Amino acid sequence: MSHSLRLGIDLGGTTAKVGVVDERAQVLHAISVPTPMDFSQAADAMAAAVHEVAALSGCTVQDFPFAGAGVPSMINPRTGRMVFANNTGWHDAPMREALEQRLGIPVHLANDADCALLAEAQAGAAQGADHALMITLGTGVGSAIILNGHLFTGGDGMGMEAGHLPLVAGGYPCTCGARGCLEAYASATGLAALAREELQQVQHSALHAPDAKLTGRTIFAAANQGDAAAIRIIDRYCALLAQGLGGLITVFRPQVVIVGGGISHAGAPLFDRLHTLVPQFVFAHEQIGTPDIRPAALGNEAGIVGAAFLDRA
Amino acid sequence: MSHSLRLGIDLGGTTAKVGVVDERAQVLHAISVPTPMDFSQAADAMAAAVHEVAALSGCTVQDFPFAGAGVPSMINPRTGRMVFANNTGWHDAPMREALEQRLGIPVHLANDADCALLAEAQAGAAQGADHALMITLGTGVGSAIILNGHLFTGGDGMGMEAGHLPLVAGGYPCTCGARGCLEAYASATGLAALAREELQQVQHSALHAPDAKLTGRTIFAAANQGDAAAIRIIDRYCALLAQGLGGLITVFRPQVVIVGGGISHAGAPLFDRLHTLVPQFVFAHEQIGTPDIRPAALGNEAGIVGAAFLDRA
Repeated sequence: MSHSLRLGIDLGGTTAKVGVVDERAQVLHAISVPTPMDFSQAADAMAAAVHEVAALSGCTVQDFPFAGAGVPSMINPRTGRMVFANNTGWHDAPMREALEQRLGIPVHLANDADCALLAEAQAGAAQGADHALMITLGTGVGSAIILNGHLFTGGDGMGMEAGHLPLVAGGYPCTCGARGCLEAYASATGLAALAREELQQVQHSALHAPDAKLTGRTIFAAANQGDAAAIRIIDRYCALLAQGLGGLITVFRPQVVIVGGGISHAGAPLFDRLHTLVPQFVFAHEQIGTPDIRPAALGNEAGIVGAAFLDRA
Repeated sequence: MSHSLRLGIDLGGTTAKVGVVDERAQVLHAISVPTPMDFSQAADAMAAAVHEVAALSGCTVQDFPFAGAGVPSMINPRTGRMVFANNTGWHDAPMREALEQRLGIPVHLANDADCALLAEAQAGAAQGADHALMITLGTGVGSAIILNGHLFTGGDGMGMEAGHLPLVAGGYPCTCGARGCLEAYASATGLAALAREELQQVQHSALHAPDAKLTGRTIFAAANQGDAAAIRIIDRYCALLAQGLGGLITVFRPQVVIVGGGISHAGAPLFDRLHTLVPQFVFAHEQIGTPDIRPAALGNEAGIVGAAFLDRA
């Protein structure tokens, strides 16, 4: 009965989600468990949750041809190891091997941004596109691309880390050690840094309130209320993000650009600005146009769905 | 007799070169003609030169299965038109159609940077690489990439204009209308602008001489002579170029990066700096390494050779 069902695992820094997904990319059953910081315990917890969710769907794990797992790390596709996972501090962690041992079925492993895009291609904003770029604006900046219908992850499978393209060389320090990466400006951390810079220069802003946190939510909310400083912060943030997106479009020429992650929930105030600004940074845009820029269509379960379809990566 | 011979055309802003190339990528016969500024006259001149060079090899044009042409413009691969050619001012010029009419054989058309990389892959510094990136540092910055053994030119064939990725958003104005593109810093024009900026701040430099021109050749020569200002200019230029190259490596993870164009003739003073600096900008370089960075191996005839092998693009 499970021949058309799929298993997806979405490992996050704090929570691991596992689910059974059908051919139409619907999540039939899902379980969340906390992510242990210890690698071996994390693999145990993920495997236990997979067994549990398989049982919920009336199957055993062995009824599934494979399990897919999206993880917050660069993957070495040859070894199936997580090269480095920021959140948990794991280096060179043998995730594919650990899961295959515990599950007894093949495991397909991918970066979480790649899974998010794969889910959008399967059932979201990238359906039908042969070439689709996705950028996620969260704590960091994730990126993924589908070229000719397949995920492209660099010549050795460890590329497409577009968050570490330069945007303002020599600018804000980035978690990677360089200065001025796209991620250093376009992430939630970057937005907060842009906000602090602006707020040092103005006396009056709702964002100066003692209990004000500088997040995408609070800064966009203040801008929506007409706070002049917040509007300047958002304008500058969007202009920088637009130049980064325009450059990526100029290189990859996708049919669609999908923007996801926490900051994308700002909605129209973000996307209206991007629709205006991005074309200015697309080479020869007057002659050849600018692709659609759309919010991610799938929510919280995208990671599970994308992982479950990794056989189509 | 011509079944193993090939025809290549390398259209430049001032000169069109055509040649007959053998299977080992050797140019057997070549002719150069001035490039007329009028499109129709240019097509006439190119076709006449092709007939002439075919005759030099004892053939007629009809003995060749196709002719390849590299042109200094973005190409619309569907229509075979040159979208916009800076040097000659042509917009939407139907080059493939014009050449096919005049030659009576199929014409393969590509951007000149793509041809340069294809030549390096066939007989130069990218031989044997499945994934190779090339950057040319000339008046502008050209770029090309081979992925999985084939040229990648963007989802719609009009991408991979990596010279227009941002490097210093909001910085030097670029010919494309944006500010701070890689090309605005890494081109010969960008190097001259960096030099002018530095020279405004120093009293003594050989580059202040009344007859001093600010070119790659003169600035690297002054640096090689120990001129402190010239050394600072080169150091800053190379750091910026390195961050651009590091970002491209982080996205594409090629096996080799080839640097060509006029500035690449600086040799060791350029490449030694790049070998030191680029890894700092390659994401996770300590875990996954940095590809070889090599000068282009082919000279003046690379454009002809690459065009002649466009059937293998």
